[in-house]
Amino acid sequence: MSKVLGIDIGGTSIKAGMFSTEGELQAVTKIPTGEITSEAAFAVVTEGLKKLLADNGVSPDDVVAVGLDVPGPVDDDGKVGMLANIELDPKGLQKAIKRVFKNANLAFINDANAAALGELWQGTAKDASSFVLVALGTGVGGGVVTDGKIVSGAFGAGGEIGHITVNRDEQLSCGCGRQGCLEQYSSATGVVRLYKVECANRGTEPVKLDGPTDTLSVFNACRAGDEAAQAAIQKMADYLGYALAQISVIMDPQMYLLGGGVSGGFDLFAESLRNSFRKYCLAPSISTRILPASLGNDAAMYGSAYQAMQGK
Amino acid sequence: MSKVLGIDIGGTSIKAGMFSTEGELQAVTKIPTGEITSEAAFAVVTEGLKKLLADNGVSPDDVVAVGLDVPGPVDDDGKVGMLANIELDPKGLQKAIKRVFKNANLAFINDANAAALGELWQGTAKDASSFVLVALGTGVGGGVVTDGKIVSGAFGAGGEIGHITVNRDEQLSCGCGRQGCLEQYSSATGVVRLYKVECANRGTEPVKLDGPTDTLSVFNACRAGDEAAQAAIQKMADYLGYALAQISVIMDPQMYLLGGGVSGGFDLFAESLRNSFRKYCLAPSISTRILPASLGNDAAMYGSAYQAMQGK
Repeated sequence: MSKVLGIDIGGTSIKAGMFSTEGELQAVTKIPTGEITSEAAFAVVTEGLKKLLADNGVSPDDVVAVGLDVPGPVDDDGKVGMLANIELDPKGLQKAIKRVFKNANLAFINDANAAALGELWQGTAKDASSFVLVALGTGVGGGVVTDGKIVSGAFGAGGEIGHITVNRDEQLSCGCGRQGCLEQYSSATGVVRLYKVECANRGTEPVKLDGPTDTLSVFNACRAGDEAAQAAIQKMADYLGYALAQISVIMDPQMYLLGGGVSGGFDLFAESLRNSFRKYCLAPSISTRILPASLGNDAAMYGSAYQAMQGK
Repeated sequence: MSKVLGIDIGGTSIKAGMFSTEGELQAVTKIPTGEITSEAAFAVVTEGLKKLLADNGVSPDDVVAVGLDVPGPVDDDGKVGMLANIELDPKGLQKAIKRVFKNANLAFINDANAAALGELWQGTAKDASSFVLVALGTGVGGGVVTDGKIVSGAFGAGGEIGHITVNRDEQLSCGCGRQGCLEQYSSATGVVRLYKVECANRGTEPVKLDGPTDTLSVFNACRAGDEAAQAAIQKMADYLGYALAQISVIMDPQMYLLGGGVSGGFDLFAESLRNSFRKYCLAPSISTRILPASLGNDAAMYGSAYQAMQGK
């Protein structure tokens, strides 16, 4: 009856899954949260987790591992670094969880790394020894796996593939302060920006956009024949294929998996992306597979559960 | 009295070292060879190895491992791929060696990977868990180590860092058929070429060069105040620092080690290289060390011995 919890911490809510130790997702709950920095807020989380278990007839004592993924750096020792986008006191939350789940090993993990581990455990990358998960969200993150393990990096910058330089001539700055990062073109923000540029170049009016990361509207415009949208997506795919080719001359993974919101348009850009990769890659890597990730928004939840179960 | 042999196979000779299992290099021999494709040629190698042992009072039966590094791809199973620059029948040589050293485990390994493993075993990278060896020779090779292991890659292209694209505007083609590879600027060939270009730009006469890879003369010219040589070396360092920064956003190693002939000028370009890396890298990686490798031309010999001793 041993169970594992995987907890995906977001800015306004957490999503928690209860897994069997074999990796079957058996129940999920979403717990609305604000800042997770006070005892009251920690209690909201732990009560929500207890309810998830109680609803499924499981005692907190049966939980052997609790993994938590966060949108920020986590070093090799599991220490959480600066979190730019959420308000969380990791140590406080850790203590509160430990009080409730006395038999559980606790672990924090970076969200992109967690998504990669999730795909390794139960997703497209099952049984792969090396692959790179490319998380195309508001930014571009990555999870690099070799020899079945995450490469988190000596300084926590492993898998920061959104910051591969793909255009040395770029004038605009990336959030990191450098210019020409992959993230400036292949994130949700990047795709929407490229679309607006293509519209301006053509003197056409963009479709109505619901904010700066509304790739869905750009993809729909592309499907409806909007040439600016097609050109923007083509550019995004070209830059992404170029970046993956750079990864391949270093790590040469078996496959690339695409996740995150932008990967919702995979059918639209898969062919362009594969062609771009083949154009830029070194010959031996030409048959590297590029596939959509299969666990969608649940990947990080799976991976954080897996990480905690490994005793890390 | 167990001994390990490390054998570095070159185009016109092989260099063989006898090691203790603790990694002490106890004797070295150089055996002139031509093509290593016939029983007669295999015998030249095995007789040379037997003599090395006999001169040191060691029996062939005491040899527990024989590692051989080759200038070309070796896959994860130890199978040697196409060798462009030497004439070698790996299977034939393997059989001949096995007949003489009955108790030895045999292993082939790529030369740049071997050099990295050598530095990990007994060189600058001792006790490092992750680093990249940058082999600046006629071309640019690399050995990528994470979690104490070589990343050879799913298709044998792991560590092919000479083919990181550093200049998308390059018109000249690299040996690989692509344009703008690091190797076009930071190899021995690249440095000499950049020097000639800088001389032509200035309308000055290059110093006398002993062939297309004579970086020694370029380094000497630089030391003597030759501005074209200084500019060429500055460019080489700038491209190299840019390439290392790209590696760091993917695997974020603890350190970079520079080996190969061009690293003989490390004192001339170390400062430019470190400045370039810091200019291009993502903030967390800024204190990554860039150091010269310490085993020089012996590194691959050390590493092939180590690889064979691991039973691979």
